[in-house]
Amino acid sequence: MVTTDFEAIEAVRHDLRDFATRNDLSHVVVVNLASTEASRVPHAAWQRLEDLDAALARGGDILPASALYAYATLAEGFAYVNFTPSVGSRLPALCELAIRTGAVHTGSDGKTGETLVKSVLGELFARRNLRVLSWFGQNILGNEDGRVLNDPLHKASKIRSKDQLLPKLLGYAPETHVGIDYVPSLGEWKIAWDHIHFEGFLGGRMSMQFTWNGCDSLLAAPLVLDLVRLVELAHRRGERGVFAAAASFFKDPMGTDEQRLVAQDEALLAWIARR
Amino acid sequence: MVTTDFEAIEAVRHDLRDFATRNDLSHVVVVNLASTEASRVPHAAWQRLEDLDAALARGGDILPASALYAYATLAEGFAYVNFTPSVGSRLPALCELAIRTGAVHTGSDGKTGETLVKSVLGELFARRNLRVLSWFGQNILGNEDGRVLNDPLHKASKIRSKDQLLPKLLGYAPETHVGIDYVPSLGEWKIAWDHIHFEGFLGGRMSMQFTWNGCDSLLAAPLVLDLVRLVELAHRRGERGVFAAAASFFKDPMGTDEQRLVAQDEALLAWIARR
Amino acid sequence: MVTTDFEAIEAVRHDLRDFATRNDLSHVVVVNLASTEASRVPHAAWQRLEDLDAALARGGDILPASALYAYATLAEGFAYVNFTPSVGSRLPALCELAIRTGAVHTGSDGKTGETLVKSVLGELFARRNLRVLSWFGQNILGNEDGRVLNDPLHKASKIRSKDQLLPKLLGYAPETHVGIDYVPSLGEWKIAWDHIHFEGFLGGRMSMQFTWNGCDSLLAAPLVLDLVRLVELAHRRGERGVFAAAASFFKDPMGTDEQRLVAQDEALLAWIARR
Amino acid sequence: MVTTDFEAIEAVRHDLRDFATRNDLSHVVVVNLASTEASRVPHAAWQRLEDLDAALARGGDILPASALYAYATLAEGFAYVNFTPSVGSRLPALCELAIRTGAVHTGSDGKTGETLVKSVLGELFARRNLRVLSWFGQNILGNEDGRVLNDPLHKASKIRSKDQLLPKLLGYAPETHVGIDYVPSLGEWKIAWDHIHFEGFLGGRMSMQFTWNGCDSLLAAPLVLDLVRLVELAHRRGERGVFAAAASFFKDPMGTDEQRLVAQDEALLAWIARR
Repeated sequence: MVTTDFEAIEAVRHDLRDFATRNDLSHVVVVNLASTEASRVPHAAWQRLEDLDAALARGGDILPASALYAYATLAEGFAYVNFTPSVGSRLPALCELAIRTGAVHTGSDGKTGETLVKSVLGELFARRNLRVLSWFGQNILGNEDGRVLNDPLHKASKIRSKDQLLPKLLGYAPETHVGIDYVPSLGEWKIAWDHIHFEGFLGGRMSMQFTWNGCDSLLAAPLVLDLVRLVELAHRRGERGVFAAAASFFKDPMGTDEQRLVAQDEALLAWIARR
Repeated sequence: MVTTDFEAIEAVRHDLRDFATRNDLSHVVVVNLASTEASRVPHAAWQRLEDLDAALARGGDILPASALYAYATLAEGFAYVNFTPSVGSRLPALCELAIRTGAVHTGSDGKTGETLVKSVLGELFARRNLRVLSWFGQNILGNEDGRVLNDPLHKASKIRSKDQLLPKLLGYAPETHVGIDYVPSLGEWKIAWDHIHFEGFLGGRMSMQFTWNGCDSLLAAPLVLDLVRLVELAHRRGERGVFAAAASFFKDPMGTDEQRLVAQDEALLAWIARR
Repeated sequence: MVTTDFEAIEAVRHDLRDFATRNDLSHVVVVNLASTEASRVPHAAWQRLEDLDAALARGGDILPASALYAYATLAEGFAYVNFTPSVGSRLPALCELAIRTGAVHTGSDGKTGETLVKSVLGELFARRNLRVLSWFGQNILGNEDGRVLNDPLHKASKIRSKDQLLPKLLGYAPETHVGIDYVPSLGEWKIAWDHIHFEGFLGGRMSMQFTWNGCDSLLAAPLVLDLVRLVELAHRRGERGVFAAAASFFKDPMGTDEQRLVAQDEALLAWIARR
Repeated sequence: MVTTDFEAIEAVRHDLRDFATRNDLSHVVVVNLASTEASRVPHAAWQRLEDLDAALARGGDILPASALYAYATLAEGFAYVNFTPSVGSRLPALCELAIRTGAVHTGSDGKTGETLVKSVLGELFARRNLRVLSWFGQNILGNEDGRVLNDPLHKASKIRSKDQLLPKLLGYAPETHVGIDYVPSLGEWKIAWDHIHFEGFLGGRMSMQFTWNGCDSLLAAPLVLDLVRLVELAHRRGERGVFAAAASFFKDPMGTDEQRLVAQDEALLAWIARR
């Protein structure tokens, strides 16, 4: 029976090795597609691998589930992709681990709907020098993700991930609000309404609204398939550590501050074309 | 009294020279901000300057008003900017004239609202490989432009300009519709509703809508000011003919097929930084 | 072979009688659910039954298809429901025929979506004394009805039916526009966007928008079933001529000028409860 | 200095009498237009006037500010209108007081925007037998009311008032959500987005959205003026206690469960016509 974080990691490592052996695989890619974890206070041992290993050896509740899986994956030298806003491999100690074992990892939080649109519209407002006064976004969804996000602690992780985009795109921080609410009748559908209030020439105030009506899984699935192929390619090319070229796939990309979709995508295309 | 196109051009040239002299100017920038002209059948003499001059010399109705002004401006070596979907300086014969006199010119049709949004959203759908099935856009506006566009012949010029964007952005032609209707109560406001129907993974169909609520003049004015400064800079840098670096300002840019806003804007920034 | 309107009516009467006999029916209800007919210039013989019969006897193209079926149905004493904006039984001569044969009939144009919403929102604006300045409605649909309405002559019939509502609800005529466009990718779906510009206290201008996302057939089918039962009940109650109590079902009701949905529905409930 | 609820009531009564004397008025109408109070736990003494008076005599914090003003007004026999979702004169003890002194009072919470639209659309869905699955409403506003409602305790009062409408209109309780958020840049404007998910024939699922873009004060002011005139008329007609005929003005009307706007308005018109 698993009672400590250390034992949990060992159990997952065992399962991963077993999976590779049974399927005759030289390399495995692990993708986190679980519902968003509850937000939690950072632990002092998250910063350095040495401290983290010491804390794990002492026992106790040090890492959230997503980071336990990330640790196990990276320790085996396998690739890890965090498609959620959960902690995953984002901790400095885990980044250190990946470099050491030569594992590739990336994340986090798949950019499939409202934030995807935001990432091109935000750039439009910046390039046209139309000052965004407020950007109010409201998401309603009916699937299991929506049910989990209805819990304020889980919602906090998601909103943090969705809300850090605009200041980076605009160069200043407008009034923003990101709401997420669970509406069971919607089932697999996720509907977002965004209202953007902006100021143009001579202080004239105007607005724009959009409604996005998407099916979460249909939008996520092809991104997940591409990510698996891309991190595998990165592994074969001998890369190690954070795979930053995948930024266009994520709301909160690792290894770069670039949030403009076109620039992210061009960087990916350039990486792919390279050899 | 002006009775032929030739005499009209001479009269405008005289006015432009007179304006320059009275204000002690070495160079003048002319911007076409008139309401959209009626669409008309191309004239055989529009293709080559030699033919155009011969036709003008014979007399008759050969050029629309916008092109008469463009001819006069370019003939004086002055800069011409076409902020409307009217013909302006777009005719091959006038491009030839500009090269000959060393005049700078650009256009056409200021990209201020619905098409501006389209130019970034269209690229988003292309880059995410979400297939656009149909894109229905409806504009309502209450100003003089709206009144003029209510005439089917004038509307045809505008719709052609607004509707050629998507195939270039997407690489295929979805079902499209661009409606423009005059709603006097709206005054200076221009409201656009766009409905985009698209197909994702496994043929799943989803949709997006947006409403743009803008004040036409407040959106156009700063673009016009920047265009004047940019074509003047191009003139001082010794450029001649079509000024293609201004593509991001226009729905139907001259001298380039690039319709992606970010690429257009990067090209402009590169041109500005150059020396 | 049928060559005149008179022969066409005789052929339909024969088919109706034959249908009744084969199915052992004492009464038949005919519902017009065909796509909207092209609009046509009224014929002088439409006003009085005597003139119509004389014209039919002389031969020639006097009635549109919908009216031929209505004539045949009413002549047999059967009930006729016009669920389309086509002419149907609306002609004074056919109303006269229904009274003579004791047939019940009603229409026209099922109120299933945009106009349904309009009929309650329009009343809201009237009761709150908020002055509607303009009401712009745009419908897009992808089914066979949409394909037929793409023809300007057919569209004219539909728009007339949809656009006569607001002046009756409001007591004055605001600027209005009703657009209908065919967007094949939408299939069975019909999407309407309405923008309402209105004026409140001290001339303050505000607006409201709605989008209706409905499936035409799912909205129409239960209305058709109820109409069949209601006109049959009216027939059994011994009513004859226009059945005005069905006004709530139609965009352009027969036998009443009442356009307010609640009042229409209350009138129907009162009629049902009667006896 | 005022230290108890009893003294506060006495002070307001003194001010009201003084105001009447200075302006030579025989009757005064008090309207509560303050921002929404924080929600609070009901006090046992709110049910009967005898208990309330005893509790007030003993001292202590028994009534919220809105009820102190209501008590003072009704005790003087003056009319009281509660245009907010605060407690006001809604307490059974205060209703008893009004009957005793012959004062007229009504409320509560002016129906000016989103809920106004809800009250006619909800009835539409009920009458057409389209089953509402979920109704999600989100309000954003920038004025002082928005600032106060940003406090969860104050927001709770408002949401309770806005959210009790649909079950009464529909006869069943769909999934509902009413959000209110403060977006300072909007100033006096209040924007509501509502998404309605409904089920039609054979379980077919469809949806409707609306956006309301109103100026709160311009919508409220004429209602307040009419209410003052109506309660004054009720007073002159010798009515006493709750003035239920004003239901159409309120989100949470007193003295009636009727929530359908047309029925409310017809009741008011009938009351006015009566003599």
